[in-house]
Amino acid sequence: MRARAPASAANLGPGFDVLAVALDLYVEVEVEPAPRLVVRSEGEGADLEEDDMHLAARVAIDVVGHDRLAVTVRSAIPVARGLGSSAALAVAAAAAAGSKDPLGVAARIDGHPENAAASVVGGLVAATLVRGAVRAVRMPLDGGLVFVAMVPERPLPTAKARQALPQEVSRTDATFNLGRLSLLLAGLADRSLMIREATEDRLHQDYRSPLFPEAPQLLARMVRAGALASCWSGAGPTLLGICDEEHGERVRAGAEQAMEEIGVPGRALLLRPDIEGLIVEGSY
Amino acid sequence: MRARAPASAANLGPGFDVLAVALDLYVEVEVEPAPRLVVRSEGEGADLEEDDMHLAARVAIDVVGHDRLAVTVRSAIPVARGLGSSAALAVAAAAAAGSKDPLGVAARIDGHPENAAASVVGGLVAATLVRGAVRAVRMPLDGGLVFVAMVPERPLPTAKARQALPQEVSRTDATFNLGRLSLLLAGLADRSLMIREATEDRLHQDYRSPLFPEAPQLLARMVRAGALASCWSGAGPTLLGICDEEHGERVRAGAEQAMEEIGVPGRALLLRPDIEGLIVEGSY
Repeated sequence: MRARAPASAANLGPGFDVLAVALDLYVEVEVEPAPRLVVRSEGEGADLEEDDMHLAARVAIDVVGHDRLAVTVRSAIPVARGLGSSAALAVAAAAAAGSKDPLGVAARIDGHPENAAASVVGGLVAATLVRGAVRAVRMPLDGGLVFVAMVPERPLPTAKARQALPQEVSRTDATFNLGRLSLLLAGLADRSLMIREATEDRLHQDYRSPLFPEAPQLLARMVRAGALASCWSGAGPTLLGICDEEHGERVRAGAEQAMEEIGVPGRALLLRPDIEGLIVEGSY
Repeated sequence: MRARAPASAANLGPGFDVLAVALDLYVEVEVEPAPRLVVRSEGEGADLEEDDMHLAARVAIDVVGHDRLAVTVRSAIPVARGLGSSAALAVAAAAAAGSKDPLGVAARIDGHPENAAASVVGGLVAATLVRGAVRAVRMPLDGGLVFVAMVPERPLPTAKARQALPQEVSRTDATFNLGRLSLLLAGLADRSLMIREATEDRLHQDYRSPLFPEAPQLLARMVRAGALASCWSGAGPTLLGICDEEHGERVRAGAEQAMEEIGVPGRALLLRPDIEGLIVEGSY
């Protein structure tokens, strides 16, 4: 069986560990019966070790209950860049292995429920745990928004990015994020309401900047190039510009120029929201 | 000039200091020229001191710049119960005195921007400070929702309720509220998505319970009587049941019975969202 899942950008500033938007970069996973475990990987992530430690294999084995499987992965999602590659891979692998609950499987094994929810549902989603299970709800997303992803060459593993965060925050900062999250949701639903302050955050972005000192400057450059607002994508290092579609290409070019001028090698991608989410083809 | 503004319920669980919904209980303020300051007050709050310390008079004097005014207040909003009476009064007084920015005036003098925003805009609003000014955005609200307000006889001044709150919270709790706020906004936009967990909160409600020990039990009783979810209204002591309109009267009756059985004298009101917000009539 074969399944395809989109990349996703989580957090989006104030929506820390909750919000994610699916983007039109995809990973496809095929799972077939085989005499013994074979993992093939093409595209992004193909340089990772191709054995039973491969996430797609681990997920497929978990779902099927044995390892006599051929698992083929074709991915266009940069790995360890904050674009939800592992969540998308886990979702697609679970579905390709025949799981009826790819979101639950992916959240349990990979641990990023908001990314996994975006990869399953598509569009803009909020996901959070309710009585131990992931509850995902789709939130309205203006069809005229596009996203520019600045993808630095250097990876930034999520675990390291998370260690930078404080355990305690002030009530003022917690409340600040609630207000900004509301503004952000209003702006994502209707882009005429989007303001650059809607992506301001006090729970994670600033704490992560020491790991990526050029980030604040790059974020500001995207807004100067015409983005409505900008933020980290997931735990970074990818940075995201939220743009009116008519300014998308201009912001992408401006982002590429900014990376060059500031000395951060990488690429800038112009992405559209994916609204289909997980697609499963064929039968096992 | 005469102006009318609706009551409001703020916070709604996870939307601490951000979210508020306007409700169909009103205060009307009339401001007219007079040889010297005269304040008349009818209805709720009429027992408060009728002099220049009256909030409506302070606001009107601030707007007009002198105190040669006759200020008449007619209110159906219970005072110091968490139904935004002071914000509604300040908004209506500012408008009746001719202010072009009643939201700004009310937020500055009364200090509850989310309540004031709901009283001005109507419906469901999120309000937060952006560069020192209140920014209010309207959020979608399902037309089939009604609200049951359990209004205890005892007042609970906001300042006291706020002193009960901690200055620091865990990052986990801050993130918890972001997730619940998203679920709540989804459920308020489409009542078929409302679940009781959507009003769960870790920033204020539990800390306030010692001031009103019967609150958790009363909140649970509203859900048992058929409310989709329940929460504190503002800083309390009013408690709110969020209901499908077809179950509103049943929840109201259940709320009244619960107050009697648990020994909290008061009344239960069945309220609809106000969607008009501030209305100004006549000219000064």
